[in-house]
Amino acid sequence: MAGLNLARKLIQTHLVGGEMTPGSEIALRVDQTLTQDATGTLVMLELEALGLKRVRTEVSVQYVDHNLLQADERNMADHLFLRSAAQRFGLWFSPPGGGVSHPVHMQRFGIPGKSLIGSDSHTCAAGSLGMLAIGVGGLEVALAMAGEPLYLTMPRVWGVRLTGELPDWVSAKDVVLEMLRRHGVKGGVHRIVEYHGPGVASLSAMDRHVIANMGAELGATATVFPADDRVRDFLRAEGREDDFVALAADPDADYDLTDEIDLAALEPLIAKPSSPGAVVPVREVAGTPVHQVVVGSSANPGLRDFAIVAAVLRGRHAHPQVSLDVNPTSREILADLTKTGATLDLIRSGARLHQTGCLGCIGMGQAPAKGRNSLRTFPRNFPGRSGTPDDQVWLCSPETAAAAALTGAITDPRELGFDYPTLDLPESASTDVVVLEHPLPPGLAQEVELAKAESIGALPELDPLPDTLHIPVALKAGDDVSTDEILPAGAAALPYRSDIAKLADFSFTRLDETYPRRARELGNHAVIGGENYGQGSSREHAALAPRSLGLRIVIAKSFARIHSSNLVNFGVLPLEFTDPADYDAIQPGDELQLDALAQGLADGEFTVRDVTQGTEFRVRHRLSGRQVATIRAGGRIAEHAGGGS
Amino acid sequence: MAGLNLARKLIQTHLVGGEMTPGSEIALRVDQTLTQDATGTLVMLELEALGLKRVRTEVSVQYVDHNLLQADERNMADHLFLRSAAQRFGLWFSPPGGGVSHPVHMQRFGIPGKSLIGSDSHTCAAGSLGMLAIGVGGLEVALAMAGEPLYLTMPRVWGVRLTGELPDWVSAKDVVLEMLRRHGVKGGVHRIVEYHGPGVASLSAMDRHVIANMGAELGATATVFPADDRVRDFLRAEGREDDFVALAADPDADYDLTDEIDLAALEPLIAKPSSPGAVVPVREVAGTPVHQVVVGSSANPGLRDFAIVAAVLRGRHAHPQVSLDVNPTSREILADLTKTGATLDLIRSGARLHQTGCLGCIGMGQAPAKGRNSLRTFPRNFPGRSGTPDDQVWLCSPETAAAAALTGAITDPRELGFDYPTLDLPESASTDVVVLEHPLPPGLAQEVELAKAESIGALPELDPLPDTLHIPVALKAGDDVSTDEILPAGAAALPYRSDIAKLADFSFTRLDETYPRRARELGNHAVIGGENYGQGSSREHAALAPRSLGLRIVIAKSFARIHSSNLVNFGVLPLEFTDPADYDAIQPGDELQLDALAQGLADGEFTVRDVTQGTEFRVRHRLSGRQVATIRAGGRIAEHAGGGS
Repeated sequence: MAGLNLARKLIQTHLVGGEMTPGSEIALRVDQTLTQDATGTLVMLELEALGLKRVRTEVSVQYVDHNLLQADERNMADHLFLRSAAQRFGLWFSPPGGGVSHPVHMQRFGIPGKSLIGSDSHTCAAGSLGMLAIGVGGLEVALAMAGEPLYLTMPRVWGVRLTGELPDWVSAKDVVLEMLRRHGVKGGVHRIVEYHGPGVASLSAMDRHVIANMGAELGATATVFPADDRVRDFLRAEGREDDFVALAADPDADYDLTDEIDLAALEPLIAKPSSPGAVVPVREVAGTPVHQVVVGSSANPGLRDFAIVAAVLRGRHAHPQVSLDVNPTSREILADLTKTGATLDLIRSGARLHQTGCLGCIGMGQAPAKGRNSLRTFPRNFPGRSGTPDDQVWLCSPETAAAAALTGAITDPRELGFDYPTLDLPESASTDVVVLEHPLPPGLAQEVELAKAESIGALPELDPLPDTLHIPVALKAGDDVSTDEILPAGAAALPYRSDIAKLADFSFTRLDETYPRRARELGNHAVIGGENYGQGSSREHAALAPRSLGLRIVIAKSFARIHSSNLVNFGVLPLEFTDPADYDAIQPGDELQLDALAQGLADGEFTVRDVTQGTEFRVRHRLSGRQVATIRAGGRIAEHAGGGS
Repeated sequence: MAGLNLARKLIQTHLVGGEMTPGSEIALRVDQTLTQDATGTLVMLELEALGLKRVRTEVSVQYVDHNLLQADERNMADHLFLRSAAQRFGLWFSPPGGGVSHPVHMQRFGIPGKSLIGSDSHTCAAGSLGMLAIGVGGLEVALAMAGEPLYLTMPRVWGVRLTGELPDWVSAKDVVLEMLRRHGVKGGVHRIVEYHGPGVASLSAMDRHVIANMGAELGATATVFPADDRVRDFLRAEGREDDFVALAADPDADYDLTDEIDLAALEPLIAKPSSPGAVVPVREVAGTPVHQVVVGSSANPGLRDFAIVAAVLRGRHAHPQVSLDVNPTSREILADLTKTGATLDLIRSGARLHQTGCLGCIGMGQAPAKGRNSLRTFPRNFPGRSGTPDDQVWLCSPETAAAAALTGAITDPRELGFDYPTLDLPESASTDVVVLEHPLPPGLAQEVELAKAESIGALPELDPLPDTLHIPVALKAGDDVSTDEILPAGAAALPYRSDIAKLADFSFTRLDETYPRRARELGNHAVIGGENYGQGSSREHAALAPRSLGLRIVIAKSFARIHSSNLVNFGVLPLEFTDPADYDAIQPGDELQLDALAQGLADGEFTVRDVTQGTEFRVRHRLSGRQVATIRAGGRIAEHAGGGS
């Protein structure tokens, strides 16, 4: 029998239930959690609803990195609420300005071999250190903090062997863009991507973060890198060498699926508007005019990613038609950038240096002009996510971004006509820079009252699933609908993240502005989806907000992992067409009849009647018995309240 | 006969019409103009409506410093439109990130003895260099660019003699706060404040900027400082010593009014919520908890103002309950701050370092939580201007701000318990940092097309004033209503600054949410105001937007200077109660009858009948014959179109 790959080792050491057979449900022990502010306020309300006294994980951290614009009082009310909740429940707290959760977590808390779940889809970035790091819905994080395991469909492990070394002007972002070019945004669904092979050693831990981060865009459950000397170097620079543990696949490990990338053969790549999967070589689109370049986000968060831009721009000036926006990742990295002189280089080159945080990556500002091209080192370019309808957002490496900033057009950086800069980066990070507040000791913590401003709403109460549903189809969506379309982020919607009753008015409005009004009139209703329904962000608001308007079932060709779990957690039934061709006949407004649901769910497959069309079609589900019970109870909070724990 | 004060000298050298008798209309030659983006888009539409080929001033600059959040596509559409208009009409252009208009203009274009008008109320800051600098409405700037003079009521000159030197922990902001403490927000109306005396030499040019800037809060027409060796030092540091001209009042100059401040006797002062005039000593409010401290804006823009905060915080850390927000003034100043190490000190102390620009000062982000105290080095704290209803915003010096950041409570900085830091600032500024684009040469300029996205609206067409009005009172306002209440700035309204038809929906909503709807239904209508109606910002939108909804007359106890001119420029008749006591009897909804307006305006005083109450009262106006003609024509654009020029 072959040896174990690293992904299976990590799962094995955390397994508390189930069998490690791809497709079956497993339960995993959770060592660490992270939440950010856009998902965290709901998580804290859930902790309150669960009656939690203090988190039971080894480490739980609440970050504030999303809602930093503060266009009105709501953002700051959220920050104050989250700080009070972190104090109350015993979490670490990273205040606004501390930085983007994923790189900060990696720098301050990442430990090879630990498991981490986070209510942010890019939590998977911590796989860069040999962690088992998975983005999930907020309620799953809340339950993990309460000591419950994470339930997961056992994924297949996809071994991607790296050979060679990256050429000049090509960097880690191009590696994951190559994966997206080959496999698209559904390529990683129900898989863990495990990078291995001789090429791995040429990538720094933060380079691996870039690649692991955008495993989310592949739809992968997680990404895993070995914990080797490069990881030891990283932890040493962060003053935490003691946390290092060497981890790797067995030499004779095998994988459920395999692929191979010769790093030396890669060239600069770019994802065209408006999908991370629409990847082409930069040279094929060179010359396209650009009016905005944004550098930053969890997809290119490292000191190196900014330093290379600064080095390319040093002594030069950004093209006057370009707004060059630089979003430093964290206070620690900004301090390092400033010490090395890169901050000054960026300022002198004409950059707009913004506050640390997610900013434009989550549609909080930096919206480009309509129809004009914006190049970003971000992970996502779903339609409208930038805040601009009909936006033209491209995703690329820092090198390609810097080249466009200089020339005002998409430019293969190899064509800039000067040598690839050599970077001289410090061996130690500015670990003395404060980015976190320590959890309060239990005695003090219990005296903290949650600071709930009037803009902090209550969780809606959800009723159990009836055995019979006669409900209309309120909306029919196409393939690859993202949670950005189901429930937008951005400057308009994010301030309402703590108030589901108000946030619900944004549900599906990118697809159909009339949905919230109609849904309120219809009451219980269904939504029809295509392939990969609910890709993108982990936001559970995309399940809870439409649920609060009466959404009871979604019938789709297939579901994205996190959103499917979120639907279950809030009592919405995710059903798949047994024959995807049945999707075509259903029309918005059709009345659907579902009888004897309890029996149907037990059978796994059953018939739905389209009363309006006078037709019938078969649907099935991929839910575990545990999940079926959750839906029938009206979701996991209702279940918890009923069953106790 | 006594010698001339400097203000009269500056007026005399620019006088092209009228007599220099306080209260009579004068016409002044305009050497320089500035516009910012929140007012500039309308100015550029006005230049287009006027058919201007190329600006006729010595220097005209379009800055982009207000609308930088880019929550949707409109901000950036405005930036692109403004850049195209600057290129088309021959203006300098300072793109987003260049910096706040007033300090950048001072650094790059300020010349003692020149006249400057700007469509921003803080344009008066350039009086720090011995300029005659006046904030006006946008249309007046547009007409100045077209070569017309500025019409102004000849102000009285208020000589304020400074003696002594400021003690440790007290700085320029405390000087102007002392003026506001003594004289309130109406203290400077129809006056030019001229600082003179032996204490002036102890204030740097940028210190004087702080004082001159907030002359706007006193309601003053302008503030003037002599151009002395400190001004020469400033221009030398900016690489422009050749632009220096020594200017001062004659030794035996007299003033229409006088006051005196002993700088050595000042202590740290603070303006309480929610008026710049509510000034008290910091020690009287010490201990008040603070949750936000914001450093920046045109009211404390200098390198020193940030460097002192950095020095106070060096080696210390901001209190964890405080969000310490730092808004660098300009790219040049941020470069200098970074070179001196102050940027790193600020980062290490826990500051959130934001992009350069106005930001929270104009309500673009940084909104505090409701009911929590925010200390700011800004010039204004009108109710709700921060973006938060019921906000608690205080105005103070950088020293007082830094003290609160350290302690988490309002703190007299003299009580911090350590020595006042000594600053070692560079003798030369980073003048090589690009903050401007040069005007296009005429040949190229004429080929530039205005980049008008769909979010750039058209100017409304305004009809002449009828001779008889029978109109209802749509709204009755109290004293000191600011243009922030008439037409808000902030993240919600500012994106619509280029589209009056949409922006009109924000008119008066801070006072009465129903006004826009009712005004549209009523058509022609009146508004009643108290004292100092229209104080604050220069935004002409506050005249044009309600005018587009049918506002024809405002009857108030008194008017702020710029807003009164803006009303005239767009054909709204500003009338004063002859007997202020008549204000009390009028009720919202009353029908007013005004007959034979032409004759009444010629007479200067006439009778208005309140048909609903069955009463009559007398009103008067302070308009010149030129202004009466403007109003009767329907505003200056209509007049221009009719009369040509």
